[in-house]
Amino acid sequence: MSAAKKQRTEEYALYYWPGIPGRGEYVRLALEYAGIPYTERSSDLMSTLASPSKVGTPPHFAPPALQLPSGRVLSQTGNILNHIAPRCGLAGMHGNALNTHGEAACEALRALDADALEKAEEERAVVHQLTLTALDVQNETHDVHHPVATSLYYEDQKAEAVRAAKVFREVRIPRFFEYFESVLATNPATAESKAGRTFLVGAQTTTADLVLFHVIDGLLFQFPKRLAKLKETKKYENLFKLHERVQGEKGIKEYIASGKRQKFSMGIFRHYEELDGEE
Amino acid sequence: MSAAKKQRTEEYALYYWPGIPGRGEYVRLALEYAGIPYTERSSDLMSTLASPSKVGTPPHFAPPALQLPSGRVLSQTGNILNHIAPRCGLAGMHGNALNTHGEAACEALRALDADALEKAEEERAVVHQLTLTALDVQNETHDVHHPVATSLYYEDQKAEAVRAAKVFREVRIPRFFEYFESVLATNPATAESKAGRTFLVGAQTTTADLVLFHVIDGLLFQFPKRLAKLKETKKYENLFKLHERVQGEKGIKEYIASGKRQKFSMGIFRHYEELDGEE
Repeated sequence: MSAAKKQRTEEYALYYWPGIPGRGEYVRLALEYAGIPYTERSSDLMSTLASPSKVGTPPHFAPPALQLPSGRVLSQTGNILNHIAPRCGLAGMHGNALNTHGEAACEALRALDADALEKAEEERAVVHQLTLTALDVQNETHDVHHPVATSLYYEDQKAEAVRAAKVFREVRIPRFFEYFESVLATNPATAESKAGRTFLVGAQTTTADLVLFHVIDGLLFQFPKRLAKLKETKKYENLFKLHERVQGEKGIKEYIASGKRQKFSMGIFRHYEELDGEE
Repeated sequence: MSAAKKQRTEEYALYYWPGIPGRGEYVRLALEYAGIPYTERSSDLMSTLASPSKVGTPPHFAPPALQLPSGRVLSQTGNILNHIAPRCGLAGMHGNALNTHGEAACEALRALDADALEKAEEERAVVHQLTLTALDVQNETHDVHHPVATSLYYEDQKAEAVRAAKVFREVRIPRFFEYFESVLATNPATAESKAGRTFLVGAQTTTADLVLFHVIDGLLFQFPKRLAKLKETKKYENLFKLHERVQGEKGIKEYIASGKRQKFSMGIFRHYEELDGEE
């Protein structure tokens, strides 16, 4: 069955590993925020995603992948988020106008003039940019416990991981935190906010906020001592406030309360006592 | 000067390090393919990109960044490519319809019905997906010579690099090559082609082709022995043909002939004799 022949359905299906939040969690958070139902598919994951007869063309390198109502399957975390952001209301005030899902949305899109279209495209791109940077933090965090190769056991690269973790804790976490704090603190849309400046783009939640929320959550799990120390410095107050704020957002709050949200364990974010430290 | 106040110009300006192709090269290849002129800016690079008074909001984590004619500066390699792909004619036959640069393009975009808009969005996303996967290969290739930390010298992580390179050569390069070969070999748009199946999406050049071309170029530089051995197997014939084909594309051919294209040296792709090997 080719992608073109796949049946149109109203269902979203997420292809991902069972048992860990992993990279699938970013897609779940976007769909939960938007209140869009989805099913999960995890059987024969790698062979399914590699098979054009099962997922259309092109085949996929790795999960997560999301089957859209059109039947099209898309992969690459950042790409999935960028594609669904407008329909989820997560591409920013202007970016959300680029929703092409359904007749009504397309009608609204066609009503935009050239300036509005340019503004929408640019805001969606800014959201995607910050989403990709937050995903980069996640990738580096993973590589701390697997610096030599993902295909080798942690125990076989523990010495290298201890070295990598030291630099990551001392240099990289503060560098990423300073960056995101500066984005939050210079966002012109929140200059007058009294509740703290907790939106990365504009004054509404975007995929960038959701990803950064989950990454901070993962870092709190992987490096609790280091994060406690960084929080104490009070240099990243907006960042930690964003983490709190997102937990209370509609859709996210209910998702967390439902118990469906899987706990961190031995996935992308992993806690090894010997890799953590205050400095 | 905030982004909103930045002057509209017809000029594209690329912010990147001087002296290496680096991640800036993917943006250069797209602009050169499209025949779009651009200038390069490299002075005080990191402090400029971090400063909202110089590049608007949000500030940027790292280069490359591209200033658009609107005055807006965007960063994150994959994001820049996804944003400019339609205007460069590099987002696929359908994806190119999403060009919002200029009145004429917007007029054409507004003429699309809901099905055509959905098809365009999905093809652009497929191109972006493969672009991101090819960029992932580049990131892993870099980490082979800096497995512990980018901030440490190679000499201080050489032992770890030798271990990482062994797994990368044996496991990862073949895995990535098999994947891209399968994408090329199952592309329905090139099923009848007699010249080989050298397009990742549809039957025209996209950002995914340009990025994969440059990544293969970089791998040929970093691992000449390993690549020669993999080429000999004849298992990746479409992949190596794509590499040849892109060199001859209009815009790219002239760029290479001009001598402007910088040589690989001590950037993302680096050749260390001790990290290469036939297996």
